Amino acid sequence: MILTSPHISGHMTIKWFVYFSVRSICNSKTCNPKPQIEHQKQNIQTCSRYYLGNLQASIETYLEKTCKIHYRSFGSTATKIQRNPSYSALTSDDINHFKEILGEKNVIQDEDRLLTANVDWMRKYKGSSRLLLQPRSTEEVSQILKYCNSRCLAVVPQGGNTGLVGGSVPVFDEVIINIGSMNNIISFDKVSGILVCEAGCILENLDSFVVNQGFIMPLDLGAKGSCQIGGNVSTNAGGLRFVRYGSLHGNILGLEAVLANGTVLDMLATLRKDNTGYDLKQLFIGSEGSLGIVTKVSILTPPKLSSVNIAFLACKDYSSCQKLLLEAKRKLGEVLSAFEFLDNQSMDMVLTHLEGVRNPLPPSTYDFYVLIETMGSDESYDREKLEAFLLRSMEGGLISDGVVAQDINQASSFWHIREGIAEALMKAGAVYKYDLSLPVEKMYNLVEEMRLRLGQSAKVLGYGHLGDANLHLNISTPQYDDTVLAQIEPFVYEWTSKQRGSISAEHGLGLMKANEIHYSKSPETVNAFLTNPFVILLLGLANDHSMGELGNDHEDIFTAALIIKIH
Amino acid sequence: MILTSPHISGHMTIKWFVYFSVRSICNSKTCNPKPQIEHQKQNIQTCSRYYLGNLQASIETYLEKTCKIHYRSFGSTATKIQRNPSYSALTSDDINHFKEILGEKNVIQDEDRLLTANVDWMRKYKGSSRLLLQPRSTEEVSQILKYCNSRCLAVVPQGGNTGLVGGSVPVFDEVIINIGSMNNIISFDKVSGILVCEAGCILENLDSFVVNQGFIMPLDLGAKGSCQIGGNVSTNAGGLRFVRYGSLHGNILGLEAVLANGTVLDMLATLRKDNTGYDLKQLFIGSEGSLGIVTKVSILTPPKLSSVNIAFLACKDYSSCQKLLLEAKRKLGEVLSAFEFLDNQSMDMVLTHLEGVRNPLPPSTYDFYVLIETMGSDESYDREKLEAFLLRSMEGGLISDGVVAQDINQASSFWHIREGIAEALMKAGAVYKYDLSLPVEKMYNLVEEMRLRLGQSAKVLGYGHLGDANLHLNISTPQYDDTVLAQIEPFVYEWTSKQRGSISAEHGLGLMKANEIHYSKSPETVNAFLTNPFVILLLGLANDHSMGELGNDHEDIFTAALIIKIH
Repeated sequence: MILTSPHISGHMTIKWFVYFSVRSICNSKTCNPKPQIEHQKQNIQTCSRYYLGNLQASIETYLEKTCKIHYRSFGSTATKIQRNPSYSALTSDDINHFKEILGEKNVIQDEDRLLTANVDWMRKYKGSSRLLLQPRSTEEVSQILKYCNSRCLAVVPQGGNTGLVGGSVPVFDEVIINIGSMNNIISFDKVSGILVCEAGCILENLDSFVVNQGFIMPLDLGAKGSCQIGGNVSTNAGGLRFVRYGSLHGNILGLEAVLANGTVLDMLATLRKDNTGYDLKQLFIGSEGSLGIVTKVSILTPPKLSSVNIAFLACKDYSSCQKLLLEAKRKLGEVLSAFEFLDNQSMDMVLTHLEGVRNPLPPSTYDFYVLIETMGSDESYDREKLEAFLLRSMEGGLISDGVVAQDINQASSFWHIREGIAEALMKAGAVYKYDLSLPVEKMYNLVEEMRLRLGQSAKVLGYGHLGDANLHLNISTPQYDDTVLAQIEPFVYEWTSKQRGSISAEHGLGLMKANEIHYSKSPETVNAFLTNPFVILLLGLANDHSMGELGNDHEDIFTAALIIKIH
Repeated sequence: MILTSPHISGHMTIKWFVYFSVRSICNSKTCNPKPQIEHQKQNIQTCSRYYLGNLQASIETYLEKTCKIHYRSFGSTATKIQRNPSYSALTSDDINHFKEILGEKNVIQDEDRLLTANVDWMRKYKGSSRLLLQPRSTEEVSQILKYCNSRCLAVVPQGGNTGLVGGSVPVFDEVIINIGSMNNIISFDKVSGILVCEAGCILENLDSFVVNQGFIMPLDLGAKGSCQIGGNVSTNAGGLRFVRYGSLHGNILGLEAVLANGTVLDMLATLRKDNTGYDLKQLFIGSEGSLGIVTKVSILTPPKLSSVNIAFLACKDYSSCQKLLLEAKRKLGEVLSAFEFLDNQSMDMVLTHLEGVRNPLPPSTYDFYVLIETMGSDESYDREKLEAFLLRSMEGGLISDGVVAQDINQASSFWHIREGIAEALMKAGAVYKYDLSLPVEKMYNLVEEMRLRLGQSAKVLGYGHLGDANLHLNISTPQYDDTVLAQIEPFVYEWTSKQRGSISAEHGLGLMKANEIHYSKSPETVNAFLTNPFVILLLGLANDHSMGELGNDHEDIFTAALIIKIH
């Protein structure tokens, strides 16, 4: 197992791999700096043999110091990183080469456009890239990566840039590869509902397209107007329909991806079932771009059902929300398509900061709100089913008040409350966002404990996908403050780990949580991300080398893949 | 890319890996025997350096001959293999060691019991193992594998031994590791429906257990009374509820597996969502035991819904079956839990060979039959919904006749027809079984073409999971006949490949189809199974080695994992 200590975490950016993997256990209690330094020397020797020539000696000298200068902090105590000196700097020759591949207009150096691409939408993570490339085809992506690999230029793939964990923007001066121009629908099978499209298609556009064909996308999220399907796949997006249609691991039928050295991997099946060997595409789902750039997606879309009903309900306490969930699963099981909850603090945040939003359940204020959506094939049966369920729940005391949307405007206004929380938080000031999987019965205890812990210094909001046991814990303060952060982390991760929860239910690790992986994964599986053999997996695919040559001729490929950072 | 030719396929069993992977492209049109021989020498050198000492020279001499003696044929023209001479033969010391680990009674040498374990239930694949081990815990599995690794003893993991492709029995004298004694339920969460259990639990027992808690297993198959959940996972079993609950890739939440060198990999999460890095467990699902032995499973079970309805219908032609499927998905979408079809030939087979079965739609004989099952939460609404759908379909001419089960006995008798086809085929004589994913609209063309091709020499049956585009093509003859086989293969694979279908929808590759993988997977992804870096993936997990050491100290581990054959 490769270990390091916080003191040398600044050195871990020998390869981009570091962002995703190596840094991830640098706070481990079993840290042992010395072996790590030696290991790093070894890696640098390897790398330098192929790229850096006589830089080797100077890097070794550098490594032996434990200087912490030039690091950047990313809102997490553990995330301090430094540019990997083994990567090349961009030259005018590089830019000319990209212009030959992509044409002038797809090689962007305009400062305003770069400013947008360098920063995430929360304005929390900011890079200093000087180049944005816009490939229009898989072949162009392949050519870009092949060239970057040969030049040792670091890259960052970017989709809709809607991520919340610093995974979709450069950290330093990486070349940004934006997939947005690859937005064609390739095929749609009206019998099976199987959609094949390019990775840059915006989720909402895909949903509109398939809705016209009588189907819907199996995922839906607040960022649907900007996020791209390639990014959704790479981050294994969850969202609002997860409770009904489940994980992308079940819905993605095929992928095409380009590996770091430019090899195109065709896994673009359009079959619901295919048991012919390892299901390699599964590894790309949720790998946050670290294994390659997803360029095409084949996805199963479920039939659009004609009857949709939405109820907005109030519950007196969290225990009632839980019981209501259990009842809904049993009594509405087959029509239930969303079960979302928000606390009173979340409702206040939306009412205060978003215009035109009103609480549909005035004048009382309740502690918890639940949004239930059903989708079925028959308007009258389904509506009756929902209303009978609500009546029983009201009689049983699980619901204190409630309203069923009478038209699409009312339905949208209910959804707007739930989906608007993130936007309202942004308007309120700084926000510390945590996306946790926890046992349903324990989930809200964390919110309450955090509230006690922070006192008046912050507003603590709890909301999320109760149906999937996924809590969005958000802490709002007027501005970012290291003292507040120190009270939140690592407490939130330790608490989650004790419950055997996940510190990232659906957002991914990104830059924000790469260091924290050990809170959710066992040492053996963390090792899988750390040891190079794991990485070799995808690198090896591109090669004609046999085992006997491993460790000798493959290093160039190792380094190649490692320059792909998080998506 | 590593290639070989059919002429040297007999030599490909240098490692067990061969069964699953290397042989898989040995019929490739781009075969190039020479490089392969050289590559094999290299592998043997590697292997012999650690295990075989001075055997190296004799193996090299042997390799240079292309003798085909001692191969065994397994009902497929391409599957001729030879025992790998680099594996050790079992000694009395080995047996004593196993007795120390497991106790006398779990080390089975009894001939009768070995006879059963050496042969698959179709009696098509037969090994000659002289030892069956029955571990009772993960720790015992780990100790067995660690020892076998150190002694270079080949092993085959075995679950319920219900596979159809020769994946669960020894081929030569492998040690059989039967997981059946590991059959404890570890936990069940009544709120979330998450079940954690040992891999040897029988599927039907698990279903009975969770049904008592108000849930059902998300998969159901004909072999449920014998098959084990570990084998289900390892073969990515599909089955009868797939159309409703989808793939195990979506339903399996966590796994524990033991790697070839004994390392226990804890991936046993109990969360619906967890985006903290690569989802390693996904690779084990459907890897047919080649990456490790699954020892524990965490699985999401859906709520048991109170209302189940089953209709048995007749359609005049295949086109009507297709249209009916499309309508059912749209009009019964949320309650549809099975959509199965069988042709007239399948019905005849069941009526002829199974006692007490009658066609519920006498006296006419139709060309196609469809079984539709719905599961919902409200008996009256759901029944009305189904009946309204059937009425419309009858009026629209999609259904020629039909009957809805009035009680559980009638429901069982409908299911018995569909589930009894495999048993009836066994009673009829020899059977060539193909399990294909194909576009629904093309699926039955293959059955008709095969019928024309084989004429009177065989009965050709088409049935399967129409809702998942999964055809079970079965060809029945009085006895196995190489002439018939030559007319079926490779035609059936070529036909499927032209439609971009899968040659194994849910059965897996096993021994039967390992050679045929290239019909369904692109060269790059096949390469993933061939190149050793891919295999290193899991081997690397067990190690403290850093990248710098790869290719030097890892070979012992390579060989270790490769001795795990298919599950």
